[in-house]
Amino acid sequence: MGFLKSIFSSSDSASPSPNAISLEEYSAPGMSDRLGTQSRIYFSTDRSIDLYELEELCDSVGWARRPLRKVRKALQHSYMVVSMWEVRGSRKRLIGFARATSDCAFNATVWDVAIRPEFQGKGLGKALMSYLISKLRREDISNITLFADPHVVKFYGGLGFLADPEGIKGMFWYPN
Amino acid sequence: MGFLKSIFSSSDSASPSPNAISLEEYSAPGMSDRLGTQSRIYFSTDRSIDLYELEELCDSVGWARRPLRKVRKALQHSYMVVSMWEVRGSRKRLIGFARATSDCAFNATVWDVAIRPEFQGKGLGKALMSYLISKLRREDISNITLFADPHVVKFYGGLGFLADPEGIKGMFWYPN
Ligand SMILES: CC(C)(COP(=O)(O)OP(=O)(O)OC[C@H]1O[C@@H](n2cnc3c(N)ncnc32)[C@H](O)[C@@H]1OP(=O)(O)O)[C@@H](O)C(=O)NCCC(=O)NCCS
Ligand SMILES: CC(C)(COP(=O)(O)OP(=O)(O)OC[C@H]1O[C@@H](n2cnc3c(N)ncnc32)[C@H](O)[C@@H]1OP(=O)(O)O)[C@@H](O)C(=O)NCCC(=O)NCCS
Repeated sequence: MGFLKSIFSSSDSASPSPNAISLEEYSAPGMSDRLGTQSRIYFSTDRSIDLYELEELCDSVGWARRPLRKVRKALQHSYMVVSMWEVRGSRKRLIGFARATSDCAFNATVWDVAIRPEFQGKGLGKALMSYLISKLRREDISNITLFADPHVVKFYGGLGFLADPEGIKGMFWYPN
Repeated sequence: MGFLKSIFSSSDSASPSPNAISLEEYSAPGMSDRLGTQSRIYFSTDRSIDLYELEELCDSVGWARRPLRKVRKALQHSYMVVSMWEVRGSRKRLIGFARATSDCAFNATVWDVAIRPEFQGKGLGKALMSYLISKLRREDISNITLFADPHVVKFYGGLGFLADPEGIKGMFWYPN
């Protein structure tokens, strides 16, 4: 639980002032109207996320369960892991997640984007994806890709993703 | 040039009998009709490929040049790099290439598939992709994906790849 430790490493643990390098407070106009004045939202790129907490987030958006052993391996070997946290007083909660694989040079592919249902529709998914994109761009990755379920093609479209540009097709291998 | 060294590490260098772990001879019925009896074809997963030789292969299929510094980084950080070599007597030549990024657990994405033009249409692209797929499957990667240019959708279709399964769309990010 590297996150809890770093978020509460300041002397005043009731009012966390995160100073770990991978932690950034997120704020946007009108956010307190949408989330309440008690909530503060943070991004993290720390990949030592509690796997049960991540599983709970994935459950909440209806994804099939995956072996935690493989989830751990996938986090370790992702190029970038971003998470979003709600902090209220001394409690923090994982409310969003996304990760990307990459060759560290040309291509990155985004996987497992999720925002906890009660936090959806408030601009947080967009904020999380924008954060991930800006991090990837800062690493000079030119080609950011993903495979979108039909119901989220519009969501990604709003972020600047194009479906099938120049007729390029996303393809998946199935054992014959 | 790890490849040359390993391919010619046997005592009889005129008739290489590759014994390095990452080297496998490829043969198929009718191959000598298509390639001539002088040619032997090998697969390799050795990623220490001469970058100029790789650039020449990419040039031969008309791809835009990329900075070698980034190509080197991409090879290092790909999960799997497969190459195909023609050996005639003591000369060897890079004739095919493909690589994949991955989280080492769930997903792999295939990039940069190329067969040298004079070797195309002889079943070698299919052989190289089948080799890559079997390697990925052996590592228990369940989801093998790629982004196909329109003119190669059929080629990948023949290998068991489906375009847009269940409406899933490949998407690319473009700076606004
Ligand atoms: C998809 C998901 C990450 C979006 O997160 P979110 O926080 O609800 O999205 P936001 O509030 O940031 O929405 C940003 C914009 O996208 C739009 N949008 C969000 N979800 C959308 C959807 N499913 N369809 C169409 N538009 C959508 C919003 O209307 C908003 O538009 P605006 O900028 O014009 O106001 C979230 O709904 C989710 O986790 N869904 C379940 C998991 C999932 O399907 N993940 C994708 C797997 S490929
Ligand atoms: C695409 C490429 C890798 C195919 O390699 P290849 O060695 O020529 O292909 P093969 O001879 O193994 O062909 C296997 C099968 O695919 C078919 N096929 C090959 N290329 C095809 C194409 N462009 N369109 C449709 N079918 C094709 C063959 O007819 C063959 O069919 P069969 O199994 O029914 O006989 C090669 O043509 C190439 O390097 N092209 C240039 C680079 C490129 O476009 N790469 C893909 C970037 S996304």
